[in-house]
Amino acid sequence: MYTMGLDIGSTASKGVIVENGKKIVAVATIPSGTGTAGPTKTVKELFSQLSIERKDIEKLVVTGYGRMKYTDADKQISELSCHTKGVHFLVPTVRTIIDIGGQDAKALKLDAQGKLLNFVMNDKCAAGTGRFLDVMAKILEVQVSELGELSAKSTQEISISSTCTVFAESEVISHLSNDIPVEDIISGIHASVAKRVSSLAKRVGIQEDVVMVGGVAQNSGVVSAMEKSIGMSIIIPELAQVTGALGAALYAFEEMKK
Amino acid sequence: MYTMGLDIGSTASKGVIVENGKKIVAVATIPSGTGTAGPTKTVKELFSQLSIERKDIEKLVVTGYGRMKYTDADKQISELSCHTKGVHFLVPTVRTIIDIGGQDAKALKLDAQGKLLNFVMNDKCAAGTGRFLDVMAKILEVQVSELGELSAKSTQEISISSTCTVFAESEVISHLSNDIPVEDIISGIHASVAKRVSSLAKRVGIQEDVVMVGGVAQNSGVVSAMEKSIGMSIIIPELAQVTGALGAALYAFEEMKK
Ligand code: SF4
Repeated sequence: MYTMGLDIGSTASKGVIVENGKKIVAVATIPSGTGTAGPTKTVKELFSQLSIERKDIEKLVVTGYGRMKYTDADKQISELSCHTKGVHFLVPTVRTIIDIGGQDAKALKLDAQGKLLNFVMNDKCAAGTGRFLDVMAKILEVQVSELGELSAKSTQEISISSTCTVFAESEVISHLSNDIPVEDIISGIHASVAKRVSSLAKRVGIQEDVVMVGGVAQNSGVVSAMEKSIGMSIIIPELAQVTGALGAALYAFEEMKK
Repeated sequence: MYTMGLDIGSTASKGVIVENGKKIVAVATIPSGTGTAGPTKTVKELFSQLSIERKDIEKLVVTGYGRMKYTDADKQISELSCHTKGVHFLVPTVRTIIDIGGQDAKALKLDAQGKLLNFVMNDKCAAGTGRFLDVMAKILEVQVSELGELSAKSTQEISISSTCTVFAESEVISHLSNDIPVEDIISGIHASVAKRVSSLAKRVGIQEDVVMVGGVAQNSGVVSAMEKSIGMSIIIPELAQVTGALGAALYAFEEMKK
């Protein structure tokens, strides 16, 4: 018995099919989001993985920024609910979720049953989000995807005293002109993101197990800096990128049982 | 009877000589600050304006970022105190001072006697400071000094919804790519600065008369936007750029009388 979840973002569409609410049987990510053929392609990709058709899906739940425009779903559910459910399925011991996206950062506190108790979000300030890393990677003339690997080579962390992206940018430029090694600067940049996000996370109250998701969770340098900053180890689940779609598929299963 | 005030900043040195604590008789601004010949040049320039020497100055008070390194003064006094005193001398009816500098913004509340009652400052976030305008001028490929004049030609204000400099920058880029006239975008940029600084000023409680000083007070577009935002008219004193040095010279006169 299959249920499906779709997470339609602004730049990517993701889909997951689960069997009997227990097993992930198909996963697809298409790098085009709402208003494009992205959602349709995602569905097609999922169906072809299992050689099934739309009628084989008992229930379909859609989430994400583009969920309101998608007409073929049985239900629309918020991203926050779907992400929480998806992460809790992957890591049943999770009590704190830290989600650093391209333009925002969130911290969520869950109870032992996976119920969302509280959350805090920063979507107003670029500091402590993926955007901060984008700005810094550009000045350093490296790819954002290289940052983690580069910072691993650092021998000393260079402190960035300003939290503000704009002021920190000037500090980085001055470090560069002082011939400070790029690896050390990157290490300082990761510490800055970690500091900012930890203070956000502390506002919900951090409890183990801590799970990190969102695009920035792919950056091992930020993850280490976060672990150092909160003094706990952090779990990065496989499939961290599709927790929204996964949660939607699990909600679809619950809908079906109703 | 002459007293002198020096305001030694990081990028400029300013000096004022007052006669009998009542009359401004010499003013100098040299575009080089602490650690350079700036302070010495400023003093030389002031002396030559009056054809006097160091021995003709009864007392010298120094203020500003570089005040600790200047050894020839009778006293060092904080910038906040000197600015307040200088502004109150120029505009005795002042009750609120709004000071937008290159990297920070302050709002000061004074009593009827010119005593500082309270102040709030933002030096952590580039939004609502001169730096925000620098970033925007760069993307728009105009000089910061042209912003005021350009915004006066605006026929409609384009809203910038993000407060954050980094996110606002993206909005401006998207307005440009949508062929929105630069003048209208600049008008929106000024409104953004005004919104941010007004909310800071509201925290001290705005009372008339309101005086605006600091580098950004030279931008007529920001001043109009501020007036609109707080619903009061704003006085920009002549000599607004040397209020720190002026206040120092006035404190020097008080020292002399002791
Ligand atoms: S602190 Fe910097 S990055 Fe954060 S909102 Fe202000 S301008 Fe943006």
